[in-house]
This record gives sequence, C-alpha cells and structure tokens, in this order.
Amino acid sequence: MPEPWVNSAERVGADLHVHLPEGKGGRQAALTHALREAIREGRLAPGTRLPPYRSLAADLSVARNTVASAYAELVAEGWLTARQGSGTRVAARAAPPRPVPVPHGTTTPPRPAHDLRQGMPDAASFPRTAWLAAARRALTAAPNEAFGPGDPQGRIELRTALAEYLSRARGVRTTPDRIVVCSGFAHALRLLYGGAGGPSRGVLRGPLAVESYGLPFHRDLLHGAGVRTVPLGIDEDGADTAELAGVRGLKGVLLTPAHQFPTGGPLHSARRAQAVDWARAHDGLVLEDDYDGEFRYDREPVGAVQGLDPERVVYLGSLSKSLSPAIRLGWMVLPAHLVGSVLAVKGQREAWASALDQLTLADFLASGHYDRHVRRTRQRYRDRRDQLLAALAAHAPHIRATGIAAGLHAVLRLPSGTEPDALRAAAHQGLALDGLTAFRHPEATGPAPDGLVVGYAASADHAYGAAVRALCRALPAEG
Amino acid sequence: MPEPWVNSAERVGADLHVHLPEGKGGRQAALTHALREAIREGRLAPGTRLPPYRSLAADLSVARNTVASAYAELVAEGWLTARQGSGTRVAARAAPPRPVPVPHGTTTPPRPAHDLRQGMPDAASFPRTAWLAAARRALTAAPNEAFGPGDPQGRIELRTALAEYLSRARGVRTTPDRIVVCSGFAHALRLLYGGAGGPSRGVLRGPLAVESYGLPFHRDLLHGAGVRTVPLGIDEDGADTAELAGVRGLKGVLLTPAHQFPTGGPLHSARRAQAVDWARAHDGLVLEDDYDGEFRYDREPVGAVQGLDPERVVYLGSLSKSLSPAIRLGWMVLPAHLVGSVLAVKGQREAWASALDQLTLADFLASGHYDRHVRRTRQRYRDRRDQLLAALAAHAPHIRATGIAAGLHAVLRLPSGTEPDALRAAAHQGLALDGLTAFRHPEATGPAPDGLVVGYAASADHAYGAAVRALCRALPAEG
Repeated sequence: MPEPWVNSAERVGADLHVHLPEGKGGRQAALTHALREAIREGRLAPGTRLPPYRSLAADLSVARNTVASAYAELVAEGWLTARQGSGTRVAARAAPPRPVPVPHGTTTPPRPAHDLRQGMPDAASFPRTAWLAAARRALTAAPNEAFGPGDPQGRIELRTALAEYLSRARGVRTTPDRIVVCSGFAHALRLLYGGAGGPSRGVLRGPLAVESYGLPFHRDLLHGAGVRTVPLGIDEDGADTAELAGVRGLKGVLLTPAHQFPTGGPLHSARRAQAVDWARAHDGLVLEDDYDGEFRYDREPVGAVQGLDPERVVYLGSLSKSLSPAIRLGWMVLPAHLVGSVLAVKGQREAWASALDQLTLADFLASGHYDRHVRRTRQRYRDRRDQLLAALAAHAPHIRATGIAAGLHAVLRLPSGTEPDALRAAAHQGLALDGLTAFRHPEATGPAPDGLVVGYAASADHAYGAAVRALCRALPAEG
Repeated sequence: MPEPWVNSAERVGADLHVHLPEGKGGRQAALTHALREAIREGRLAPGTRLPPYRSLAADLSVARNTVASAYAELVAEGWLTARQGSGTRVAARAAPPRPVPVPHGTTTPPRPAHDLRQGMPDAASFPRTAWLAAARRALTAAPNEAFGPGDPQGRIELRTALAEYLSRARGVRTTPDRIVVCSGFAHALRLLYGGAGGPSRGVLRGPLAVESYGLPFHRDLLHGAGVRTVPLGIDEDGADTAELAGVRGLKGVLLTPAHQFPTGGPLHSARRAQAVDWARAHDGLVLEDDYDGEFRYDREPVGAVQGLDPERVVYLGSLSKSLSPAIRLGWMVLPAHLVGSVLAVKGQREAWASALDQLTLADFLASGHYDRHVRRTRQRYRDRRDQLLAALAAHAPHIRATGIAAGLHAVLRLPSGTEPDALRAAAHQGLALDGLTAFRHPEATGPAPDGLVVGYAASADHAYGAAVRALCRALPAEG
C-alpha cells in the first residue's frame, strides 16, 4: 500500500503554485513561504505527511538541500513536525484558526461634509516642497550619530534654532539647554504631571489652576494623572489671576495668555504680571500654553509671559497649529531647576520625537522657511476670518463674533439656550464644529454663555465658502 | 527742570543699536525687540520713563505710529506700564531676574572611546539617499489630509506595506486593520499595560511572565505600571514555557522567540507550540518581541510565532535595530478583539508617530528599499560577528561566544566570578559594554553565569577593529 505522501508528492508540488526565483536563498525563501501558505490555508491539512526531500525536489526541479532547508525552517516555526521514522508532517496545531474579523467601529470616522472644527490648521497649505528641501539639507549634513539613539532633551540643532526663533518671534528668554523637545503639548503635560494610570511620576504636583474654558482633553489628561484642576473665572481681561492667591496649596497655573482658548481674549498686561508675581510669592509656576501665538491679524503678536521671568514660567509650544499636527514635535522652555527632573522622567534615550523631523525642523527654522510659512498662513487665516465675519454681517447680523483678531478660530455668541439646537442644525447640514459649552470646566461658576467655536482653518480653500454658508444656515434666526 | 526722559531720549535711541529694516511691520518688530532686550539686559532700568513717541521717532527716523505700536506691544507683554499723566515707564517687575545656569550633569554623557553597547545599529549605515528619495515620493503623493490630525491606528499606507512585508519576511499573518502603529516597543508595552509617566492606561492586566534575562528597562516600565513580572527559566531550548501552567492567574507571557535577548538562543519549535497552547487554554496572550528577527546569518530567519495563532499572539516590532532608533516607529499586530481597546487607549488623534516618517517608511517598504537595506546590513553585521569570533580565537581562545549566528550582539561567557573585573577593565580602556548579569531578572532562580554582552553594530566600521582589540585586552586571562 503506497504511503499517503506518494500520492501527495505531486499534489504538494502542484498546490504550491510556486514560482521559484533564481538563486538558492531566494528559492528556499519562496518554497518556505509557499508551504507555509498552503498549511495556513488548509490545503495541507494537519497530520499530512510531506513528501521526502528528493521527491519534492525532483517535482520542483530544485536541489534536495533547498527542500531540506525549507522543511527545517517550518519545523523551527512550528508548522511542521519531524520525528525519526515518521517523516515530516504538518503539525496538528497548524490548523488555521478561524479568521476573526476586526470589529466595526474601531476605525476613525470619515471626514464631515463641512469642517469647521477648531484646533486644525489647513492641511492643504503644508509647504511640501520647502519641507522636503529642508529634509534633504538636514539629512545630508547630519552627523552619523543623528541616526543612533537620540538625546531625550532633543537634537541640539533644533534646540539652537528654537532658542533663536522663540526669542525673536515670541519674546521667550532662553538658551538651548533650557529647551526639552517632546511630541506635542499633551506629551509636555504628561512629563510635567505624569500620565494616566499607575502612580503619577511627573515632575510637579497638583492642584493646578486652569482657565474655566479650555480643552477637555487637557483636563481629562490631568485628572487621569490624579491632578485636581481649579477653574479661574474669565472676564474681558482674560483669566482672573487674582483668584490664585485664594487657593490653598496651589503651585501652578495653566494659561493661554496670547489668545485665551477658546473664548478668544488676550490676558491683560496687569494679569500677566499678577500671575508671575503670584508664582514668585508662592514658589509656584505659570504654564504658558502658546498654542497659536504667531497668529495675530490686527497687530504684532504679544510676546510670551515667559520673558517676564524664565525661572517662574514654563513655556509650551508645538507645530500643531503653525505647521501641522502630523509632525509630532513640541517644546518646553523650562526654568533651569526643572531641566534635570524633566529629563529624568523622559528617560535615557529619546523614545518619542523623530530625530529626522527634528533635524528637518531645525533647518526649516534656521533657513527662514518657518517664518515664511507663518506669514503666508497668517494672511490666509486672516482672509478666512474676514470671510466669516462678512458672511455673518450679511446673513446673520444679530450674531456677534467675540475675541481678538487672532488664531485659527472664532467664537460666535448665541442667544441664551440656543446652542444645542444650533449644534443639531449644524450636524443636520453635515457641518462639524463644537459648541462653546463643551469647553467649560465642570466646576466653573461664572456666566455660561451659549456659543459656537468656529475653526476657520480646517477646511481647504475650495471647501471653506460652502462650510461658512452651512454655518449661517445653522444659526438661530433673530429672536 | 528737564524730565528724565528728555535726557534719555537720545540715550534710548543710541542704546538700542537698532538697525531698522525696510517696511513698517519689520521696523516695528525690530524696535519692539530692541526695546525688550534693552529692558531685559538692564540698560533700561525699572521705573525709567521712556521718551514720548515723537522724540524717539525723530531720533530713529521712523513714524510716530511705529513707536506707539512698539510701546503698546511692550505694555501688553508687561515690560512697560502706561498710565494717564505719568507717561510710559519700564515696569518695576521687568527687572531682569538673575540668570540661573542649568545645573551640570543633566545632559547626555559623551560617547565612549570604544562602543560595544548592545541595542544599537550602525548609525553610519543609515541609507540617507534612499530614505530621502522615499520621503520625496511619499510627501509628493500624499493626500492633503495626511498633514492634518493623524489616525491613531497609523497611516493606512504604512499598515498596508507592513502587512505585506511582515507576512512575506516574518511569516506574520495579518491584515492592515489589525496593525496599530506606535513609536517603538516601549510605547507598545505602555499601550498594553499602561505606564507611569507614560501615555496610557493599558488594556491588559498583569502578572506577566517574562524571560529570566531581558532588558531591565522593559521590566522597570512594567513594574512602574504596577505589573508583576514572573521570570521563566532559560535553557538550550529557550524560555521554559512549561512553567507557564504553574503560575496562578497568569494571562500573558513576553518572549523573544527568534533570538532570546540577550542570551542568544532561539525558542525551540516545541516551546513555541507550548506557549500558544498555554495561551489558548488559559485565555492568555503571547507577546512576541521580534526585535531583530531579520538578522540571521546561518540560515533563513525563523518566522514569527504569531503565524501559529493570530488571535493569541501580539506581534511587536520596530525600526530600532533594523534601520534606526532615530525614527520613532514601531508596530503591533493585534488579535482582532484587542484592536478596539488599544485604539481607545491611544486616543482620538495620533499624538506620537510622525505621519511624515510613516508615509516615508511605507514607500521605503513598498519600493523594496527596506529589504535592500536589511540585506546590506545583514552582511555587514555578519562580517562584524565573524571578525569578533576571529579575534577571540586568536587572542582569547578560552572565551566562548554563545547563541546562534544572529542579531546585533553576542554573549561571551566568562569564568565564574570574573564579570565585574572584566567590566572594570573595559571601562578602564574606555570601552562601553554591558555585563550579562545586568539583564538578569531579580527573582530569577536558575544558574547565573558570568558574561559580557557585546553589541557589534554600535561602532562605525573604522572604529570597530579597535573596539574589538580593547575588548580582548579586557577579557580575563586563561585561568
């Protein structure tokens, strides 16, 4: 009675449909792959005895050694078993498990028809050519060690370029050795206050005063790290820094001085001074979130609070609004005494920020391309803002946009109680945007106005007009 | 009596040393900057009254309006105060704080004279030209949305290229929708188990079985997240997976099947099967750390355990050994049921992995440049390994290198008790490398051999010979 493999020798060869390339290594890899696939797909069932080397080799016109190596490979991987006297068989456990589909709803939702979400720059304006040219210069000039494990403080080329730029453009007072590169604002917050889960190993301890309106994501991150946040009221002069002195045990305050997010006012110079004075008197820190400080349309941007006292202010910035959130780079400008402890938390090797992006950004800054890009997008966003205000004046003159002419978003104040309906009407139009109430601190006590936060940068140029028209249709009629 | 500013008007102008460029905006920015620096550096003392607009404007030959805007800017920033009737003065709190130097010892130590540390590829072999060409193709072809907020699962271009590559080269069985991109192995571990100071809250619960030798950094990370690790003994067949069944409540095991790190053996096929069987029987998971699976010098690489059961194995890989740790990209191939929870932990937007690097890597993989690079460095590291073994044979024939011909490191077994002296002798020669004992789990119970872990990839070609000679000098003489 013939062994089962005698029948299967030709079948195996035929089933493999294997096109063996030239060269021994390539042939063996192709044969291994073909056998593995045949087992996976069940064409070679568990327990099947494989033909001896010489039969399959003859059938496929390859060396016996090639087949022997392929079998050995698959034995090592666990697909085949080889036992003295019993030949080589498909392993029992190699039965292909039932393919389990990935559950639906786990992937990102599709883009909305109209996009006026805050927090996003115009992706279409990314300066591809200039960025690639900077990458070419930077990667060509980089020393070899740039491709090894990274300095967790960040590439010195980038920190040097940032120190120059931030001093010139934002009035930040720093040297490269006070800068720590990270992957964005949220990463910086995690380095300072610890991450969610487990013992908070950040550098600072809570509680932390925050503005009564801000990104829920940032509050959630802090709360997840066990940090209590205390909301400060906001009036026409910005966050009420006078409230700081009344909070027991407070050691830090997180502010958006250039352009309060999202309500849109600047922090008054007296308040800026008051925050720094409070930090000096209470051994505290001001965290300055300068998320869109470069974008002011009516005047030169107001410089950073950090310049008032570099030992009491942590300055935080990133590329997310000014260039692209696709490049995961941010920076902290730290008081001298915090540099060591932040680096200790960050670890011995850079685990987050791409050295290639860092080197490219360093060149992009130093060569003036960053300034050029900011100037160009500043004009673009100013036009978008003007277009929004003109549309409101024409179609909804009763709706007021508040805040200064700055940034990538505007807040439209709505009649009391109309925000939920406006959001429903927007969704009905396929228009994505946020209501003002979503940004309110749950423990805030001041007035809770209705409003819409309109991001005028997220859409591409060609889609922006339609998005603004959809917005006007979603606004409440004059009451 | 003249006002103090009457004297200071010319002095302010002269002190500013300001070269005002053409164009109103540029002039105003330059004047603002110059005034700010003068205040910072103490040249304009707190309380000093500034000259009226017209005086300074005349002195500097600029429009009054330019001076007025510069003053307003500095008032907003808090450097100046403007009060009705009292003019514009340098703010009291603008006194420059004493510059505090960043403490020493907070920056990365310099590179050693000779570098045989494990875990680092040869930075000099980074394929700059091919990478830049891939970046150019990828960024030119990318849709605009690639420059907006990122999909936390990773770019579909990269996941598609990875699914093809990992299937072909590593026997991984996956589709793009089971892959989640991250910034490296440690990030993956944080996403799975949470991490102190890290980005996540983890989806799995401990305890976790680990090999009794491994990277202390990984154990520390797990312990920091509150995960207890249980060491498995290691023998000539690799980690002793038979021990898994004896640990109560165990739900996971972390293995380096292709090439045990650092001891250097492969996991026997029976053990591979046993680990998967254990996971099936105990509703557990095998975490497969495939850190250097592409680098095998004596045969085709053994495929991934993941191929045996994609629903019970999490496959983990990164670029750190195969291309460069400077590009912060890694990947997890997940069982279908884990994709949703890992993405939930990762958040709504990609906060870590650079989209530009992701797009470039996708092209680099799909165009065959990654295979080409691996082939080229495989040959290079094989030569380095041969050179090391030849040097040992010539100069220290009593010292044996253990483990398979694979990876980026070898383990030299030393006579019992000689490891500390060998490390001291190495340090004395300016040679950086690790002792084997540093990798031992603190609760391991098996034999604790003395040894040196020699990374033969970290040095550049021209420096490698000298590093090996330094190593030979540091080895104990035949006893």
